[in-house]
Amino acid sequence: MTTITKNLTNTPKALPPSDQLGFGQHFSDHMFVAKYTEGKGWSEASVVPYGPLSLDPGASVFHYGQALFEGMKAFRKESGEVVFFRPEFNYHRLAEGAARLCLEAPPMDLFMEGLHQVVAADERWIPKGPNTSLYIRPTLIGSEPFLGVRPSRETLFFILLSPVGSYYSEGTKPIKIWTEEKYLRAAPGGLGAVKAGANYASSLKAALEAKKKGYAQVLWLDVEHQGIEEVGTMNVFFVFDNEIVTPALNGSILSGGTRDAILQLLRSKNLPVVERRITITEVVDRLAKGELKEAFGTGTAAVISPVGVLHYQGKDWTINNNENGPLSTQLYNEITAIQRGAQADTLNWLVPLKK
Amino acid sequence: MTTITKNLTNTPKALPPSDQLGFGQHFSDHMFVAKYTEGKGWSEASVVPYGPLSLDPGASVFHYGQALFEGMKAFRKESGEVVFFRPEFNYHRLAEGAARLCLEAPPMDLFMEGLHQVVAADERWIPKGPNTSLYIRPTLIGSEPFLGVRPSRETLFFILLSPVGSYYSEGTKPIKIWTEEKYLRAAPGGLGAVKAGANYASSLKAALEAKKKGYAQVLWLDVEHQGIEEVGTMNVFFVFDNEIVTPALNGSILSGGTRDAILQLLRSKNLPVVERRITITEVVDRLAKGELKEAFGTGTAAVISPVGVLHYQGKDWTINNNENGPLSTQLYNEITAIQRGAQADTLNWLVPLKK
Ligand SMILES: Cc1ncc(COP(=O)(O)O)c(C=O)c1O
Ligand SMILES: Cc1ncc(COP(=O)(O)O)c(C=O)c1O
Repeated sequence: MTTITKNLTNTPKALPPSDQLGFGQHFSDHMFVAKYTEGKGWSEASVVPYGPLSLDPGASVFHYGQALFEGMKAFRKESGEVVFFRPEFNYHRLAEGAARLCLEAPPMDLFMEGLHQVVAADERWIPKGPNTSLYIRPTLIGSEPFLGVRPSRETLFFILLSPVGSYYSEGTKPIKIWTEEKYLRAAPGGLGAVKAGANYASSLKAALEAKKKGYAQVLWLDVEHQGIEEVGTMNVFFVFDNEIVTPALNGSILSGGTRDAILQLLRSKNLPVVERRITITEVVDRLAKGELKEAFGTGTAAVISPVGVLHYQGKDWTINNNENGPLSTQLYNEITAIQRGAQADTLNWLVPLKK
Repeated sequence: MTTITKNLTNTPKALPPSDQLGFGQHFSDHMFVAKYTEGKGWSEASVVPYGPLSLDPGASVFHYGQALFEGMKAFRKESGEVVFFRPEFNYHRLAEGAARLCLEAPPMDLFMEGLHQVVAADERWIPKGPNTSLYIRPTLIGSEPFLGVRPSRETLFFILLSPVGSYYSEGTKPIKIWTEEKYLRAAPGGLGAVKAGANYASSLKAALEAKKKGYAQVLWLDVEHQGIEEVGTMNVFFVFDNEIVTPALNGSILSGGTRDAILQLLRSKNLPVVERRITITEVVDRLAKGELKEAFGTGTAAVISPVGVLHYQGKDWTINNNENGPLSTQLYNEITAIQRGAQADTLNWLVPLKK
C-alpha cells in the first residue's frame, strides 16, 4: 500500500462546546489527502493540517461535476472506546459511485488506513455528549485541468472530520415534508444511485422553496411524479397497519447505510418489512383510510427523523398526530444504543478505531 | 460597479504554435476573478495571473455540485480587430443557470467588464490561423465551506481563456454517433436546460463507452428513450427533404447559442426550419425512406459537426454517404465568415473588444 505520511499541526484549535455543535459547522485539526494520477497510481497519501486545497481553475470538478462524497460517523462509546459505524458499506458505495462518475476510487486498504489514521490524529475531536458524534466526509474530486469534456486523469481523495450534534435544529421532533412535483432529484440512467454532488445541485432549489413554505425537507417522486423515492437527504419508510414499506432500490434512489441497517434490524425482529415500489397515491389513500401509522426518514446525519406532516397537492396530511411514533422511537433508541455501546452489537456494525 | 483591479504577470508564457492548438489544452497568462458574499455583495474583482485557486475542502462545489459554466469565443478578424460572438446570450444563460443552482450571478456590467478586461490583457493569445479562436470559459462555483446540504452563501466567479483550434481531431469530417439508451443526460425538472457541471458528470461514462465502441459522441434521448435531445455537447439538426428539424427546448435540452444563431440564419433565408419534438423512431424511419439528407450538431466548440453515421439498436445508418452535406457546409462557411469579418454581420452577432 501507498505509505501514509503525517504532518501534524502545531496550532490545534479550541474544541467547540459539545452541546452547541450543530451540523457541519466545525472542522477538526487535520484531514487525510491522497492523489491518483493515471499511469502513476496513488501517491502523496498524508494526514495534514486541515486547510485550503490549491487547485487549478481548469480542474474537472469546477466544470464537469466530477465530485462524489460519503457521509459516515464515528462514535465515542460510553466506555470511551471509539468505533466506526459500518465503514465498509461506505467504502463500497464510494467505489461504485467512482466507477459511475469516471473517478478513481482509492483501494480499500488506503481508504481504511487513511480513515483510521486521521481519526486517530483527531481523537480529541470526537464529542462525548448524547446525540453527538464525529461526522466523516470522504470525498473524491476530478483535479486535472483541461477544457474538452472527458474524464479527469487525476483524482483527489480527501477525508474531512466534523464533530456534530443533531442534524435538525428541531432535535428529533417530527418534520414537515413537501411532496415535490416541479423539480426532480434523479432519473433512471442518471446518478441517483450514487452519492454524486450532481444530485444535490439539482435538489437545492427545491429544498429552498419548500423551506420558504415552512417544510423541512422535500419528498422526492420519480420522473412520473408517482413513485416515492426519498425524503430530502434520507431514505423513507412507511409503517402501515399490516406492513412496513420502503421504496425498492430502483437505480435512482440512494442505497442508504441507515436504510440497510434499519432493514436488518426489522428483519432480525421478524417484522413484516418490504422493499417495493410505493406511490404517493397509495400513501395518501391509506393515510385517508387511517392505515398509515408512522412515516420516517433514515440517514447518517439524522439517524431517524419522524415525518409529522406530509404535504401533497395543496393538502397537509398529519401523520400519527404529528408525534414521534413507537416504531421510529424504538429503532432510534436501539441504533443509537448500539452505536454508544449501551446495547450489544449483534449485527456486527461497529469497527473499533485502531491505535 | 465593483472596481476591477489588475495584477499582471511578470512571466508571460510562450504562445503555443497556432496550428497545434487542439482544444482546451492551453490557458492564457491571466484570468478574471470576483467573489460574492451574502450580505456584502461582489468584491475582489480582478485580472490576475492564471494560477491555482485556494479553496476550503469543505467548499460547496466539492460536495453539492454547485458549479456552472459558459463556453463562448472571441475571434481575430482578418483585419486584426478582436470580436466576441454574442456575449449577451452567454451572460443571460449563465444568469438563468445561477438561479436554478442557487448560485449568485454577477451583474451584467461586472461580467462584461471582466470579460473585456481579461481578454484585452491577453490579446496576444487570440490566435490568427483559420479555424482558430479564443475559447472563453466563465465559471461560477459555490465556495462556502460547510457540510449540511444547503446553497452556498459565497459564489466565486472566474473567466479562463484558452486559444483553440478544431474541437475534433478529425477536423470537420463527419462524426459517428451512438444513440444512448442506458444512460440519461437530463430529465424534466432537472438541470438539463442549464450549463451545470452536474449534467456533464452524468454524461462522461456514456461518452467513454461510446468512444470505446468507435463513436465520437452520443445521441441523447429523453427519459422515455424516444424524443431526441442533443448530441454530446451539441444541439442537433436534421435536414429532411421537406423541412429542417431541431428538437424544441423542452426544459431538459440546453439552449445553445450556436443553435439559436443557426435558427436565425435559416429563417433569414426563408428555409423551412421547425423546432419540435422529434423521435429516434421518426429519424430512423425517414432515414430508411431516403428522406433524411443531412444531420449535424451545433456548438461553440465545433461550430457545426456533420453526422456521418448514426448507430441505433445494433445498426449503423449512414447519412449523406458519410460526407459533409451542402447545407452544413454552407452554414459553417457563413458563420465562420461572419466571425472573421469576411462576411457582413447583418444579424448583429459581433461585439468588438473595448480598448
Ligand atoms: C439523497 C440521500 N438519500 C439517502 C441518504 C441516506 O444514506 P445514509 O443512510 O447512508 O446516510 C443520504 C445521505 O445521508 C442522501 O444524501
Ligand atoms: C450539452 C450541450 N448542449 C449544447 C451545447 C451547445 O451550446 P452552444 O451552441 O451555446 O455552445 C453545449 C455547449 O457547447 C453543450 O454542452
